Amino acid sequence: MKLGFVGLGVMGKPMATHLLKADTTLAVFDVATDKLAAMTALGAQVCATPREVAAHSDVVFIMVTTTKDVEQVLFGEQGVANGLKRGATVIDMSSISPTAAKQFALRLREQGVEMLDAPVSGGPAGAINATLSIMVGGDADVFNRMLPLLQHLGKTIVHIGGNGTGQVTKCANQIALDVAIQGVAEALFFAQRNGADPAKVREVLLGGLAASRALEVCGKKMVERDFGAGMEARLHHKDIGVVMDIAWHEHLPMPATAATMQQLNALMANGWSRDDPASLLRVLEQAAQAK
Amino acid sequence: MKLGFVGLGVMGKPMATHLLKADTTLAVFDVATDKLAAMTALGAQVCATPREVAAHSDVVFIMVTTTKDVEQVLFGEQGVANGLKRGATVIDMSSISPTAAKQFALRLREQGVEMLDAPVSGGPAGAINATLSIMVGGDADVFNRMLPLLQHLGKTIVHIGGNGTGQVTKCANQIALDVAIQGVAEALFFAQRNGADPAKVREVLLGGLAASRALEVCGKKMVERDFGAGMEARLHHKDIGVVMDIAWHEHLPMPATAATMQQLNALMANGWSRDDPASLLRVLEQAAQAK
Repeated sequence: MKLGFVGLGVMGKPMATHLLKADTTLAVFDVATDKLAAMTALGAQVCATPREVAAHSDVVFIMVTTTKDVEQVLFGEQGVANGLKRGATVIDMSSISPTAAKQFALRLREQGVEMLDAPVSGGPAGAINATLSIMVGGDADVFNRMLPLLQHLGKTIVHIGGNGTGQVTKCANQIALDVAIQGVAEALFFAQRNGADPAKVREVLLGGLAASRALEVCGKKMVERDFGAGMEARLHHKDIGVVMDIAWHEHLPMPATAATMQQLNALMANGWSRDDPASLLRVLEQAAQAK
Repeated sequence: MKLGFVGLGVMGKPMATHLLKADTTLAVFDVATDKLAAMTALGAQVCATPREVAAHSDVVFIMVTTTKDVEQVLFGEQGVANGLKRGATVIDMSSISPTAAKQFALRLREQGVEMLDAPVSGGPAGAINATLSIMVGGDADVFNRMLPLLQHLGKTIVHIGGNGTGQVTKCANQIALDVAIQGVAEALFFAQRNGADPAKVREVLLGGLAASRALEVCGKKMVERDFGAGMEARLHHKDIGVVMDIAWHEHLPMPATAATMQQLNALMANGWSRDDPASLLRVLEQAAQAK
């Protein structure tokens, strides 16, 4: 099985590197040509377009940022869809709209190509250590055939259901995570403004039911006032935008997610997009500067 | 040191029982006389009023529900303040307003009585197993003197700062916890309405950064549709009310807590007050019944 990989960013590069161990060829493409040189050194075959990657591959992985990016990679003039043979498989590991993921899968199926949506959780560290959580939507047989490849990339790999349900699960992940981070920000902000040391408060809270990875990881950054990424807030802003768009279309009340989205909007407006979402604390502080 | 305990409810009864092991007398009172009989059998000295408890005690513990309850127990005609000797100590373990806790401490100090606010986290199970987290506000010397007594009741016992800061910490706990539960409810609601099995979604999310005790405990109840307490939603509603009142007075923006408060209001309106806060999922479902 010959492999291809489109998108060699902070996540894609270490993932593609793991796939080079799969004992096959790996054709790669990125819009940033400087990222390609390093992959040549590792033994990958550098291509000029996604279409060329597809022409060399039985399975094409995609790891880019937005729904529009994936659409361009798949269906642009030099896109993957124009290069793939019947019977090939696309595994999109980007975090994009579940609705779009479903539509893309339908379009590819018309030309005899199967698609999985397989977004991940775990960030750059998870990509580097191949310990990502991978949430997969698509046909069960396709999932079973692709599982050995995904096992090069992640640890918790779960088939959720049909096309799009992997992206739905990633949305659910971001809802629970970002609302929890906002809750931690409000808790520590409240404590600080009422004379309780946030470091001590975090310590006690970690011992009880309020404990969360958000309190551990982002809470620590808030207490230490170290707002650098970590995770990148702009990606959370992107994902929550996808969620709220679906909530709007489907008439789903999501009040805490909506409140969190507004705070992420303010975070972006302040130019903290590449900082950690722990910066949600700074948004609260800024809105109440006088004290 | 002779001890007293006012409030023998779901939390107070097991706590008072642990204090009976402290090798001293324990005077007790509860408005519900049926709760007193059981304590007599265990060797406690039953009193007719909080004032009588105070008259028998060097240290009086209080474990009741609301700020008003504590005020009544302390400063009512038959209240603790009218029975205490100079040099006595009051340890209020109820979850009440930090502002009130501070005022109560000042009033008691005028008559030579020290007070600690020492609210807890961990629920009935924590009270029974003496594994409560206890967040303490008040004078450091008083804390150090009382610590051996508190160690009969809890495991994580942290002195935060001056009077009221224990209650501030409990507020922070409830902010982080309830906002996280609301986030879990929205995540599982979104998943369910978009065709992803909430049980599988919870499973994957527990493997990543969205993991929390809220997802473990309340998320499990949501997935299993077992909404019975667990925790009691009415107590969370009470605590978040205290938080939002302070936020209003102090001009603190708390958007996700505010959204969660509205959902808790709706939960109460539906008569689910003694069910688990996992019922926040039912509030979302009810607001979008047609699907």
